[in-house]
Amino acid sequence: MTNTVILKVAMMCTGCSGAVERVLSKMEGVQSFDVNLETQKVTVVGTVTHEEVVTKIAKTGKAVEPWSD
Amino acid sequence: MTNTVILKVAMMCTGCSGAVERVLSKMEGVQSFDVNLETQKVTVVGTVTHEEVVTKIAKTGKAVEPWSD
Repeated sequence: MTNTVILKVAMMCTGCSGAVERVLSKMEGVQSFDVNLETQKVTVVGTVTHEEVVTKIAKTGKAVEPWSD
Repeated sequence: MTNTVILKVAMMCTGCSGAVERVLSKMEGVQSFDVNLETQKVTVVGTVTHEEVVTKIAKTGKAVEPWSD
């Protein structure tokens, strides 16, 4: 099943956002993603769960939390 | 056995270096570490191998390579 996972990830520069992009681009099950440095919004589409994406991004050392509008 | 592992890690801002520090502070076997944003030098002391530290830092999404003086 395809999910859309939306998270808030603490990123300060293009080095930060690039690191998150690099990790997502290698993550199994991810079909597409968007990393927005300005809004700190990370959107991931794929056969992945919220939990799986949070765990993966946590390994980057960035603070991650659910996105709230 | 205690090793000292020295690596070059691509970091652009304190968000980048903070992420690396956060990951190392949680890594099993690490006794102490130093992350230098300016020189890109990361020094890790502990009962860990070069390989283990490289693998862990690679998960941050940062480019990592052996340190060469």
